[in-house]
Amino acid sequence: MKKLRARDLGIPFEGVPGKNNTITDVEGVTVGYSTIIEGSDARTGVTIIHPRGMDDPTPALAGVHSFNGNGEMTGAAWVDEGGILEGPIGLTNTHSVGIVHHALIKWQVEHHGLTQHWMLPVVAETADAWLNNMNGFFVKEHHVLEAINSAHSGVIAEGNVGGGTGMLCYEFKGGTGTSSRKLPQKLGGWTVGVLAQCNFGRRYQLTIAGVPIGNHLKDDSPATNGENPFRQDDGSLIVIVATDAPLMPHQLKRVAKRVSLGMARTGSIGGNGSGDIFLAFSTANADAARGGKIMQLEVLPNDHLDPIFGATAYATEEAILNALVAAEDMTGHEISAKALPQADVKELLKKYGRIA
Amino acid sequence: MKKLRARDLGIPFEGVPGKNNTITDVEGVTVGYSTIIEGSDARTGVTIIHPRGMDDPTPALAGVHSFNGNGEMTGAAWVDEGGILEGPIGLTNTHSVGIVHHALIKWQVEHHGLTQHWMLPVVAETADAWLNNMNGFFVKEHHVLEAINSAHSGVIAEGNVGGGTGMLCYEFKGGTGTSSRKLPQKLGGWTVGVLAQCNFGRRYQLTIAGVPIGNHLKDDSPATNGENPFRQDDGSLIVIVATDAPLMPHQLKRVAKRVSLGMARTGSIGGNGSGDIFLAFSTANADAARGGKIMQLEVLPNDHLDPIFGATAYATEEAILNALVAAEDMTGHEISAKALPQADVKELLKKYGRIA
Amino acid sequence: MKKLRARDLGIPFEGVPGKNNTITDVEGVTVGYSTIIEGSDARTGVTIIHPRGMDDPTPALAGVHSFNGNGEMTGAAWVDEGGILEGPIGLTNTHSVGIVHHALIKWQVEHHGLTQHWMLPVVAETADAWLNNMNGFFVKEHHVLEAINSAHSGVIAEGNVGGGTGMLCYEFKGGTGTSSRKLPQKLGGWTVGVLAQCNFGRRYQLTIAGVPIGNHLKDDSPATNGENPFRQDDGSLIVIVATDAPLMPHQLKRVAKRVSLGMARTGSIGGNGSGDIFLAFSTANADAARGGKIMQLEVLPNDHLDPIFGATAYATEEAILNALVAAEDMTGHEISAKALPQADVKELLKKYGRIA
Amino acid sequence: MKKLRARDLGIPFEGVPGKNNTITDVEGVTVGYSTIIEGSDARTGVTIIHPRGMDDPTPALAGVHSFNGNGEMTGAAWVDEGGILEGPIGLTNTHSVGIVHHALIKWQVEHHGLTQHWMLPVVAETADAWLNNMNGFFVKEHHVLEAINSAHSGVIAEGNVGGGTGMLCYEFKGGTGTSSRKLPQKLGGWTVGVLAQCNFGRRYQLTIAGVPIGNHLKDDSPATNGENPFRQDDGSLIVIVATDAPLMPHQLKRVAKRVSLGMARTGSIGGNGSGDIFLAFSTANADAARGGKIMQLEVLPNDHLDPIFGATAYATEEAILNALVAAEDMTGHEISAKALPQADVKELLKKYGRIA
Repeated sequence: MKKLRARDLGIPFEGVPGKNNTITDVEGVTVGYSTIIEGSDARTGVTIIHPRGMDDPTPALAGVHSFNGNGEMTGAAWVDEGGILEGPIGLTNTHSVGIVHHALIKWQVEHHGLTQHWMLPVVAETADAWLNNMNGFFVKEHHVLEAINSAHSGVIAEGNVGGGTGMLCYEFKGGTGTSSRKLPQKLGGWTVGVLAQCNFGRRYQLTIAGVPIGNHLKDDSPATNGENPFRQDDGSLIVIVATDAPLMPHQLKRVAKRVSLGMARTGSIGGNGSGDIFLAFSTANADAARGGKIMQLEVLPNDHLDPIFGATAYATEEAILNALVAAEDMTGHEISAKALPQADVKELLKKYGRIA
Repeated sequence: MKKLRARDLGIPFEGVPGKNNTITDVEGVTVGYSTIIEGSDARTGVTIIHPRGMDDPTPALAGVHSFNGNGEMTGAAWVDEGGILEGPIGLTNTHSVGIVHHALIKWQVEHHGLTQHWMLPVVAETADAWLNNMNGFFVKEHHVLEAINSAHSGVIAEGNVGGGTGMLCYEFKGGTGTSSRKLPQKLGGWTVGVLAQCNFGRRYQLTIAGVPIGNHLKDDSPATNGENPFRQDDGSLIVIVATDAPLMPHQLKRVAKRVSLGMARTGSIGGNGSGDIFLAFSTANADAARGGKIMQLEVLPNDHLDPIFGATAYATEEAILNALVAAEDMTGHEISAKALPQADVKELLKKYGRIA
Repeated sequence: MKKLRARDLGIPFEGVPGKNNTITDVEGVTVGYSTIIEGSDARTGVTIIHPRGMDDPTPALAGVHSFNGNGEMTGAAWVDEGGILEGPIGLTNTHSVGIVHHALIKWQVEHHGLTQHWMLPVVAETADAWLNNMNGFFVKEHHVLEAINSAHSGVIAEGNVGGGTGMLCYEFKGGTGTSSRKLPQKLGGWTVGVLAQCNFGRRYQLTIAGVPIGNHLKDDSPATNGENPFRQDDGSLIVIVATDAPLMPHQLKRVAKRVSLGMARTGSIGGNGSGDIFLAFSTANADAARGGKIMQLEVLPNDHLDPIFGATAYATEEAILNALVAAEDMTGHEISAKALPQADVKELLKKYGRIA
Repeated sequence: MKKLRARDLGIPFEGVPGKNNTITDVEGVTVGYSTIIEGSDARTGVTIIHPRGMDDPTPALAGVHSFNGNGEMTGAAWVDEGGILEGPIGLTNTHSVGIVHHALIKWQVEHHGLTQHWMLPVVAETADAWLNNMNGFFVKEHHVLEAINSAHSGVIAEGNVGGGTGMLCYEFKGGTGTSSRKLPQKLGGWTVGVLAQCNFGRRYQLTIAGVPIGNHLKDDSPATNGENPFRQDDGSLIVIVATDAPLMPHQLKRVAKRVSLGMARTGSIGGNGSGDIFLAFSTANADAARGGKIMQLEVLPNDHLDPIFGATAYATEEAILNALVAAEDMTGHEISAKALPQADVKELLKKYGRIA
């Protein structure tokens, strides 16, 4: 049975999605997963995003924004400085950043060689410490290769897959979600795709299509026991934005900033414990990061960016909710996590006039 | 007749406001306005915030965040570098930044002297170019003094007053709004107060308590004529956050970042044309910026910040809606702007189950 | 008699200067001054840089770096966000930022109109509080117009002129200095020009061509009286870098960062009291900031930047020393400042084997 | 025979070093190395810095500055956001960041536990790709443990040791260097210690005590063959600054910025290929990062920072030169690298009047 997605529940969103409503709607982008569910303790994995597919090592112009840097995105310094993203992007759990970093360099050296004498791979993480024993270091090099090699375009899985396998979101089971927007031709016709690894938020904050869902569903929330009033929003949100719009690095940084607005649309207030770090890259201007000679770029003027900013915020919102809708109940290391109760959510959306 | 505020319409908000639901709920903070409405062209003014009242020149620890720097906040470089805010904060229209800058230095020199040999006043702006002729330069030094000297604690005016006089927000009449949150004692008991000069947003984006108000009220929006598909979100949002929570400058910068989440709660996607720049200061640690010797500070640990982050986002949301609710119809330089139609809004909130 | 410049004293520098060794060696750039020396108290002025000359309002791609933000550069937020510089750049004293800001907007509106509905002019400052009574507010609108209208290409004045009129540098008389580098064709043939308003540094730090000049000439330094061991490096260094190299905004930000290295070459340790803020713009890609449609850009790859980085550091070093060499003794508001004693400097350079 | 250090050659420096002229002069700081020299290909290692010694896991307040982000410093996002450094700092080669990251987490979990549910270790790198085969991945977990466990206070090794083993600097053999400054009591009496992993610079740039050493010693420089005029400054400089001065995180960020000035004092222009990333931490205020309740901090006012800024720049300069002086000839993966020719350097320093 085909898995439901957020808009299958009738949740209304702004804007028009691309063909599959996935990050892979951006031509060339492929995504692969390695999902590790073993014994009682291992609930984790790796997600790989190839900006131009596995076989094309051409760097991409890119920008980053750290909304709340209680997290890790290796390689961010060079993206920020040089405006360039090289190699596949890896997403995993916090304590497996090292092995993914290692494996990505090794793979890139073997398959493509390096444009500089070194590689600064982008590996980002969220902490699945509750469902997964992060100190078991379950991610191995072969898992990274599995994710690299299984990457494909078209429809991609969501929920308890890849780096998102053991994540929590608004104290429900979280995970991996994706979405896209296709702008009308009169606004440029560009595609914006988003992939989110969702592991953030307190229950009471959860907002869907403006409806205060979390306030209604917080009875079983472990956070409401009141023992520690300062129990914080432990977690993180990592979002990768892809677009075929021809943007310069400082513009892509601005795009990455708009992810925080999409996050806010689902209710988050950006907790101290949440590592919310976002990266945006453009598949346009394939020659732009090659180096060696003067480059010819096509670039959008700033006054054409609003539709792309909106698309980013809206696709982020939907990708987060797609992760929540796709994720299924999971018992693991320390806790059991419940999936978002879809029937209750539909009921509440009806009550608040958001679905018929 | 007492003016209605957003929660008087029944709009639900997160969190508990302080005594007056104003930035002046933070002990010591005072606010003054000069409102300039003259002839057919002058619709502008000046807002002054004294962090510790007019008579206390003690600097305050502070932090800034430029979410979208298509705007001006003078003095931001030193706040960002030194973590220190000195003197009154001025808010006005874009083309009157110069005169307010001049007048604030002059006043500070005459009344308090300077802690360094120079002053770097904080003056921020939004563009009232549609209702006000910004090139008429209507703000004069005496207006700045009027705002400085009329500042007071307690209840303060909202809507078409001070720097917000001629502003637009979501293509309705915008202006000045304020709100506050008082945390429960178990979360520290701190107060967070916000003052917003609101001049941003496209009609269709306007969201109130999660309800897509703007989508229902866009028929008369000048932006929907479709002549220029890229007609952008011209405007700006300036927000000043005050708190009595003892925070270090890098923490206040984090507080200022959360303003963008409150902005997002009202529907904005952070348009290219909007100068969205935010400053947060703390009235605690009055000795902290005096210099000359080792300072003793009280500081909150990072894991106590979530309630303050939430309070900032929620008070920002309410301050923006307070500006919209308080603002009244205005005809000026180039256009006439309608106030938010309160009856329609209540109707829609009812339809969407947000008020009884 | 033609004024001597730093290299006329035999001071060796790295790299080859452009035709006039001025910022105006970058095609199109013009510079104008208004120098105010009146009575015993007024020792100040205004410097104007037109990125493409007075008659061409085409915006330029640009980037900024605040090395030590104890200073002001209005407009920096938009340069940083949008990558765009619009209108003339103004440099003046700290307390005259307001009037120059006002005058630049007024002039731009009258002569060119605005590309957005508002203008965010770049006005930067250093504090001449010792030779000039900054609280006398001697800069008037007509001075700004004088600087705007007197701007020209070719050789430009240095020392006690324009915004640099009343400045101090390494506790000698400082002021305005300029320099340029012309890269050899095999490194691209680009020109990098620098204009520095120099008002920073403690005497003992002054280093010329690696020689510890300041250590030898500190006997008459007011700073060595030891009354306040924490007497700080009050001052500031504002540097504007122009280039015809086709760079993207994030690359221009990197160029602006290299100014700090040139500053370090003259001995500064970047004191707390020094507002060291730098801006770099490119005259290439004239269509780049016009907006309205997809732009075609030529851009240098990152691996071509080193010669431009070096040129920036070296030209900054020389511009600072040109300011010191050109500046003449001045008595003003509170003190008398001595010019750099050229004979002593030459003697020391000989002693240290740097000139024959 | 005791190894010579830069000042043993008579090179003059500003300021007074601490007891051992090492980073370990800051009370509590310990440093350990693992040096890997095996076969013809392995020339690399690991350096570990324990901010408070191996047995004290108390976090430290910290700040970072990326002068040129063509490099990696994991954990920097949280240092920048939260102002907190937790766990040992690891320095290694670029392609061994992953294994060091992994090993540091594992060690911290086993020996101290975590203050949050996750750890974001600080691991930085420079590329030893010329003397070491970075793609051999020679660093193993036991090397990291060796460096962790061998850490000590007092005198520490320099040159071809630890993470610096296979590095180049100004096209001579580079490596690890350290230095410190002890301020006089009237300036606070604080200690500033620096450890630098030096792998940057083109030969002609090398400057020692202001003397253009590199220009005189460039004949055998591989860079002068002219085959590629754009051959860039491949390399990197990682510097860790420790101090017992009680500083807030935003002040420590400012300290980290001054490292770039020390780098400039040795001649660098901050090449595109050089990952120059700096971190500063304070051992004061041991309670400051513990969390859980309001903290009492002692903090220096901004106007007391100049001596610390100077100490940072001067100790950085000396640490770099100490690395160059201590490093010895090395033949490895692709090249042979010569040590700095000490006799020639002394000769040149004499010629330029810097030593008797």
